[in-house]
Amino acid sequence: MASLGPKIEHLIEALRCLPGVGPKSAQRMTFHLLERNRDGGERLALALSEALQHVKHCHRCRILSETDLCLRCSDDQRRKDQLCIVEMPSDVLAIEQATHYKGQYFVLSGHLSPLDGIGPDALGIPQLIDLFDQKTIQEVILATNPTVEGEATAHFISQLAQQRNIPVSQLAHGIPLGGELEYVDSGTLSHAFSGRESI
Amino acid sequence: MASLGPKIEHLIEALRCLPGVGPKSAQRMTFHLLERNRDGGERLALALSEALQHVKHCHRCRILSETDLCLRCSDDQRRKDQLCIVEMPSDVLAIEQATHYKGQYFVLSGHLSPLDGIGPDALGIPQLIDLFDQKTIQEVILATNPTVEGEATAHFISQLAQQRNIPVSQLAHGIPLGGELEYVDSGTLSHAFSGRESI
Repeated sequence: MASLGPKIEHLIEALRCLPGVGPKSAQRMTFHLLERNRDGGERLALALSEALQHVKHCHRCRILSETDLCLRCSDDQRRKDQLCIVEMPSDVLAIEQATHYKGQYFVLSGHLSPLDGIGPDALGIPQLIDLFDQKTIQEVILATNPTVEGEATAHFISQLAQQRNIPVSQLAHGIPLGGELEYVDSGTLSHAFSGRESI
Repeated sequence: MASLGPKIEHLIEALRCLPGVGPKSAQRMTFHLLERNRDGGERLALALSEALQHVKHCHRCRILSETDLCLRCSDDQRRKDQLCIVEMPSDVLAIEQATHYKGQYFVLSGHLSPLDGIGPDALGIPQLIDLFDQKTIQEVILATNPTVEGEATAHFISQLAQQRNIPVSQLAHGIPLGGELEYVDSGTLSHAFSGRESI
C-alpha cells in the first residue's frame, strides 16, 4: 500500500468510526477535507470536541443534552402524566416532528440484548422504575422499534408498569400510509388484518 | 424542528462538510458518536486537528505530505526522467497499487474548469513548466480522468510538453477488463475499435 504519511493515515482510520464509512469513503473524506475544505475540517474538529466535552445525558429522560435537564424535561408547559419510552434520541425527534405529543420521554439508548451484555441496568430501567414509583405518570406509551429485541424490551417494561397499575399503550402496527398492499410483508399484513378497525 | 441544543446541532451541521453526508446521515453520525463511540469521536477530533495542522503539499509534486518533499519525491531509488500527471492524490495511490511505475508524479488537484474559476495557476501549471524546463524529464505520462475536463487539461499540458520537445503519452482507453461488450458505452467501444491492437 502506497503510504501518505502517518497523520493522513490516522485521519483515514479515525473517520472509519463513523457509521456507514468504509476504507474507500474514509480516504475520499480525508482528501476532500485536506484538499478542498480545510475550513470545514477545522469547524468539524472544533464542533466535535465541544460536543464531546459538553453534551451529557438529561438526568431525567436520558436524552443527549447540554444541561442537566433537557429542554423538554424542564418545559413546564408539557404534560407530566404521560411518558413515551423510545430506544434512541432520534426517535424523540421523529415523534416530536410527526405528532402533537406534549408529554415526557424516556430514552433507553438501546434495547435488551443479553448476548451483547445489554441488560436492564444499561437501559436505565432502575431509573425508569423510580419514575413509575413517583406516581405522577398515568400513561406509558411504548414506542420501541418493531423488531424482536424492541418488542421484548417493550414487553419487559409493560410488565413493570402494569405491576404498578399504570396503563400501557403501544404504537399501532399496520400498513404504512402510501404503501401498496402487494409489497407489504406478510407479518405486517397479518397483523393489520387481525387488528382491523371498524369505520 | 425539535431542538437538541446548539452544540449538538453545530456538530450535525459540521459533519455535512464531509462528501456524501446529508442531514439524515449527519444526525445519525452525531448520535452514534455521542451515544456509542465517544472514544472514537475523541480520536477523530484529534486526528483531524493534527492532520489539518501538519499536512501540507509536497513542494515538488503537490501531493498531500507532512514533509516539504513527499516520500516519493525524496526517494532516490525512483526514476527522475518520467513524470506522471494526475488530477488527485487518490490517483497516485491507485497507480502505485496497480502498476510497477517507479517515476515521479505531479498532482494537479483538479482539472481546468474556467466556469468555476479554475485556471492553469490553480493547477500548478507554472510549477509544472519549471519542472519541464529543468530538462530532467524525458517522458510525460498523462493520467487525467477520461472526462471532457480531464481530456481538455491533458491536451493543454501535452501542448506545453511538446513545445519543449518532451514526449507525451496518455493512459490507453478501451474496454475495461472483465466487462461485457454489450454493456460498454458506445464512446468507449468506438474508441476501442478504432484503436485496435494487432496480436
